[in-house]
Amino acid sequence: MRHRLTVEAYTQGILSGDRIILSRAITLIESKLRNDKILAKTVLENILPNSGKSIRVGITGVPGVGKSTFIEAFGKHITSLKKKVAVLTIDPSSKKTAGSILADKTRMEELARDPLAFIRPSASGLSLGGVARSTRETILLCEAAGYEIIIIETVGVGQSETLVKGMSDFFLLLMLAGAGDELQGIKKGIMEMADAVAINKADGANETAAELAVSEYQNALHLFPKSDSDFITKVLTCSALEKFGISSIWELITEYQEATIKNGYFQKNRQAQNLEWMHDYIRQTLEDQFYENSIIKKAIATSENSVKEGNELPVAAAERLLDIFRKTITK
Amino acid sequence: MRHRLTVEAYTQGILSGDRIILSRAITLIESKLRNDKILAKTVLENILPNSGKSIRVGITGVPGVGKSTFIEAFGKHITSLKKKVAVLTIDPSSKKTAGSILADKTRMEELARDPLAFIRPSASGLSLGGVARSTRETILLCEAAGYEIIIIETVGVGQSETLVKGMSDFFLLLMLAGAGDELQGIKKGIMEMADAVAINKADGANETAAELAVSEYQNALHLFPKSDSDFITKVLTCSALEKFGISSIWELITEYQEATIKNGYFQKNRQAQNLEWMHDYIRQTLEDQFYENSIIKKAIATSENSVKEGNELPVAAAERLLDIFRKTITK
Repeated sequence: MRHRLTVEAYTQGILSGDRIILSRAITLIESKLRNDKILAKTVLENILPNSGKSIRVGITGVPGVGKSTFIEAFGKHITSLKKKVAVLTIDPSSKKTAGSILADKTRMEELARDPLAFIRPSASGLSLGGVARSTRETILLCEAAGYEIIIIETVGVGQSETLVKGMSDFFLLLMLAGAGDELQGIKKGIMEMADAVAINKADGANETAAELAVSEYQNALHLFPKSDSDFITKVLTCSALEKFGISSIWELITEYQEATIKNGYFQKNRQAQNLEWMHDYIRQTLEDQFYENSIIKKAIATSENSVKEGNELPVAAAERLLDIFRKTITK
Repeated sequence: MRHRLTVEAYTQGILSGDRIILSRAITLIESKLRNDKILAKTVLENILPNSGKSIRVGITGVPGVGKSTFIEAFGKHITSLKKKVAVLTIDPSSKKTAGSILADKTRMEELARDPLAFIRPSASGLSLGGVARSTRETILLCEAAGYEIIIIETVGVGQSETLVKGMSDFFLLLMLAGAGDELQGIKKGIMEMADAVAINKADGANETAAELAVSEYQNALHLFPKSDSDFITKVLTCSALEKFGISSIWELITEYQEATIKNGYFQKNRQAQNLEWMHDYIRQTLEDQFYENSIIKKAIATSENSVKEGNELPVAAAERLLDIFRKTITK
């Protein structure tokens, strides 16, 4: 990477809201180099007291639902209220290069030019755990840089929704109206995670279908248990293209924030997310140490095959592998 | 425990279908004593080639849904077809003693006296992981003893449904008809796990409500994505008390088994469950070694507090704990 700045330069730059330095700090966080990691850790520790003061909004939906257009309209609405918005994209499958950061900004051209907005896709070449970690840390950096609304967009691949839900205060599911089977494209359990469902592209010929979809989803949601937040999941319609329904969604999020701060859920949820982050990291590291051990890597395929075929007890195979692992680390 | 038998006596007893020896072998498997564990492992390895030939049916539902009465009626229906049925109960919260095994059998008095039936509640004093392991191994023993239908009942506490789903070929959710909010008592995601939903107590004055519930659930299920088994989740009514609808549920399960053996899902699912069992055991052991380490136990509360309050970065706290752990095992 480019010549590094000092800890002080990063810290001061972020706290003063300098977008160039914020960008470079995120790149630092994503770096796999040992020296970068040490530097990144100190920067994060410095800005930690200034982080946390935002609402973190996770947004998901299947490809084709119009996420980019929605986020651009939604982001522009927020900046029109003189609030600063950061848009982070989680894409664990991404093989992105520096060039595609540009492509991502072209996706939301108008928002990218807005001085109150900051757009950043997730780094390429990271594992799901790596993406989770860097996004969580990027949220803290953006908050310290004064961004009041953090949008975390997921592309809906792999486990990215669960990941984003685990770092959001509010989770918005974008849907399309259609022929009854709207949920076919949505992975199991996603609907239950949502704090709100927005039927996008509810314009022109779609209007009637969208209204029908609203009542269908409302009925379906009615069957789900109430969320711990005590907030009832709402179904709304919107059209990012015609800028319709966007402000209602923003108002709903504001209402949610006020209600959950009042009943204590907002803080409780953040605390639980922090704890989960720590334990996830511990578990992930323990697992990585095992599965990335070179001797285990060689031994595991044989065990997997005999277990799959029912020729060996799963526990017996596991214990054999654990024994091998124990010997390699204590010797 | 009582005087142990030899490996040969356990093996032969199980394979000949001796219920007393089967019981004693299960007790052996549940034992925490080192010598018992070694013996149990050999017995399991011996009977492994004779296991697997059954249909494993997981059954869940909230307390009050009438699970015991249903399982008794269902079990009696199976034995009336001259088939052998084993009923295992998973209750991770259980503080059961030998006395309550009796109580459990009293719950299903008629079935308990049936020579073709075998009833066994999960052992007391085991962790969730321990219960999972012993139940999975008990399934193998029962299969080797000739039981063709293995019912695994969950009490719906903690994560027991996910556990049971992960060891079942077919997962049945028992529900009650009510006032629209039937799912309130059911934990998130349970409905999506079900291969069939049975509205129990659909007798007398409940009949109309039950029919209404069927169409409500069918509509809700319609919104879920299709299962990997390609089998469409059905909603049925039954009355365990009036022995109504029981045979239809059994027929549905038979149909499911035939269809999924034909399309290959049955075998694929079992293989995946075996692999998951091995990896679960590895992960669980790695975690236990960490969290049950005496030095980690002392250090973790302080870390949790500072992370919860946002005074320390989750990753920094995790890394400190992992460092401490590494030093204790390599020294």
